Amino acid sequence: MADAERIAGRLEELWQIAHGPGGGADRPAYSEAEAQAMRRVAGWATELGLRPAIDRHGNLWALPEDHDGPILTSGSHVDTVPDGGRYDGALGTVLGLELVADLGRGAPETGGGAVGTRDRAAHDVAPADPGARPALLVCAAEEAPRFGAGTVGSRLLAGTLSEAALAALHDAEGVSAAHARERYLAALSDVPRIEPPLQRIRAHAEVHVALRAGPDALGIVTRVAAPRRLEVVIDGRAGHAGEIGMDERRDALAAAAEVVLAVEAAARAAPPPTVATVGALSISPGAVSVVPGRARLGIDMRAIESAPLDRLEARIREAVADAGARRDVRARTTLVRGGDPVALDRDLAARALAAAASRGVPATETWSGAGHDVQHLAAFAPALLVFVPLRGGESHTPQEGAAMADVLAAADIVADVMRTRLDAAPSPVESIKSD
Amino acid sequence: MADAERIAGRLEELWQIAHGPGGGADRPAYSEAEAQAMRRVAGWATELGLRPAIDRHGNLWALPEDHDGPILTSGSHVDTVPDGGRYDGALGTVLGLELVADLGRGAPETGGGAVGTRDRAAHDVAPADPGARPALLVCAAEEAPRFGAGTVGSRLLAGTLSEAALAALHDAEGVSAAHARERYLAALSDVPRIEPPLQRIRAHAEVHVALRAGPDALGIVTRVAAPRRLEVVIDGRAGHAGEIGMDERRDALAAAAEVVLAVEAAARAAPPPTVATVGALSISPGAVSVVPGRARLGIDMRAIESAPLDRLEARIREAVADAGARRDVRARTTLVRGGDPVALDRDLAARALAAAASRGVPATETWSGAGHDVQHLAAFAPALLVFVPLRGGESHTPQEGAAMADVLAAADIVADVMRTRLDAAPSPVESIKSD
Repeated sequence: MADAERIAGRLEELWQIAHGPGGGADRPAYSEAEAQAMRRVAGWATELGLRPAIDRHGNLWALPEDHDGPILTSGSHVDTVPDGGRYDGALGTVLGLELVADLGRGAPETGGGAVGTRDRAAHDVAPADPGARPALLVCAAEEAPRFGAGTVGSRLLAGTLSEAALAALHDAEGVSAAHARERYLAALSDVPRIEPPLQRIRAHAEVHVALRAGPDALGIVTRVAAPRRLEVVIDGRAGHAGEIGMDERRDALAAAAEVVLAVEAAARAAPPPTVATVGALSISPGAVSVVPGRARLGIDMRAIESAPLDRLEARIREAVADAGARRDVRARTTLVRGGDPVALDRDLAARALAAAASRGVPATETWSGAGHDVQHLAAFAPALLVFVPLRGGESHTPQEGAAMADVLAAADIVADVMRTRLDAAPSPVESIKSD
Repeated sequence: MADAERIAGRLEELWQIAHGPGGGADRPAYSEAEAQAMRRVAGWATELGLRPAIDRHGNLWALPEDHDGPILTSGSHVDTVPDGGRYDGALGTVLGLELVADLGRGAPETGGGAVGTRDRAAHDVAPADPGARPALLVCAAEEAPRFGAGTVGSRLLAGTLSEAALAALHDAEGVSAAHARERYLAALSDVPRIEPPLQRIRAHAEVHVALRAGPDALGIVTRVAAPRRLEVVIDGRAGHAGEIGMDERRDALAAAAEVVLAVEAAARAAPPPTVATVGALSISPGAVSVVPGRARLGIDMRAIESAPLDRLEARIREAVADAGARRDVRARTTLVRGGDPVALDRDLAARALAAAASRGVPATETWSGAGHDVQHLAAFAPALLVFVPLRGGESHTPQEGAAMADVLAAADIVADVMRTRLDAAPSPVESIKSD
């Protein structure tokens, strides 16, 4: 059983590490504060008899000692958005530790008597099939704000983010993500290093606070809408606002405005929960008395099936080309991040729904519009993602709230599911692409 | 007669003071480079027998010695946009010196023999009516890019820009315009100071290179379309791009895009040369994965009559309110700079057109969409603005070009007109507001 007091205490310790001007948690990706949080978690893992180690991407692994067989990983992340909440990332990390305690201690010699060691005892007497043991995996640099790219640690693990791409990401101060990682790793130089033991993962689970208000139930996530992103650059002609007649203009912002509305219309015409957002727009020269010569738009598209996402992208590309042609401006669309919806493991999700039903806990199948580390780890092992309802406040804000009863229910259900995998044969990994 | 070689030589000297990265002239408003250019001009004025002095706003006056009667001022400005051209401002300044030489030397004792002293000689023998004498007025900080506000020196002179407003203007480095002026004045501390002799101005003339390509003729400007500016701030609701459905959104950028297109449509529906421009637009948070919660637009409107400008403003305000209501976002419109078209002196313009006709120089009545110092000086004296055709390149760029034949023709015509005012009675000042 997960321990409410211990969970609350650890959340409070992580919360206290650093605060932003708005009073929220402030542990940016690959920052000193993230390193400090990782160190704290590594200490708790050591208390549980696990052996913490950092991989070259900055992810924290805490593995059972004297065991080189399969593992059941669980965890989340400890970095935050600026002025973030108490639960995002931290909750799944703390519950990863609870799961290890619940399913069995990390060190075999402590196998007797503790809560949740029933199954472990069975493995100890079956050396031919040592079974899987619970472990912790906390991914680094999950939040996007600092470098404009999220789930960095898990994408580096999965090989879907290259070292070259990492070096090209920069924060507002011009620090590259690669350099920030170097400093972050240096801050953790006393923690042992590890080669990521990806092939040993038999199953992975993450609990996360829901990012949107929703039904009064746990969310069992079956699909994650990986973002697909376009950049549109429109080149018109700059000029003095008082001296260029309306008929002579090649106004980059006017063309961009048409694109913004076309993106919105295309997403509205697509089946929910398909969405598209122009979240970034900058123009130059950007002076009130100058007709904009250039506009740059960042477009984010998400769907839980690939087909509507592909149609959405095609419509947006058409709208950009059309605005460019009609307005005699040069409009280029570049795919800056490919992404297809990820299907999580159906069997684990079904077991989670069944476990909830048998415990009388309200739970519903759902999807995630936001990216999570679990979607990248799903390439290596069957993966489960459970949402704890957002109670009060909004996610990614200091007011973000969750109820302890929901937290404990999620912990129980994940433990129920993962317990069934302790001695199961490795499952085949489902295709990470949906179709 | 203006001297082509001297004009070209002085333009070259000003051009050489400072260059931007693009190879253009780089003398920002209230900068060390502007002060250096003012000092150079003051030196040339001294050579002409004038007495240069700086007023508290940084404007350079060069007055005839031993004369406290009416003056005929002429000049322009010597600051530039970043990577500006050779002619903008510099041309009218250098021609102001030519006009003084042409109409008579500044110091009465040098009245004999020099070119253009015919009329001055007549005044010397009529002490009861000393007549007006030519003088130079070079206004400071005319260009808008550094502080986001143009014609600063002449607006301070006219009292239409307050000291409080000046202190609130800042450049990209956070330096206030008031502080920049202080440093600029300190750099000119050896130049005598003067209380602006506005009441002595009997007429004012400015020659300026045209800011737009136009007919192959001098432009005699009768109306200047002072910019009127609005700021629109739209507050919607920020949120995760993947987690907020299209139906739930209150997207500030989508509302802003409607405003951008409405501004364009309203200006297109207005009589030319009415124009409106959204030259500035910023959104926040501004991350590609976040629905924009706030958008801020800077709108510039210009017309050569007040009525269409008023109608344009009303239409834009309506469109903002409409977008706000339809999209459930808060949309506020603020007038940040009032402005009405300015009518320049009809009599001076008629005389300029007649002078051009009698010299066989093509000239046409025109309007200015851009602001010029002359429109503010028009509050104190009849004012004339003559455009030299833009030949090659674009204005406000290093390629900006003008033909010396056009320059000399403009100088001749301004001299013809101003000569008629040397001993004329003071003219009443026309209303600066058109209706």
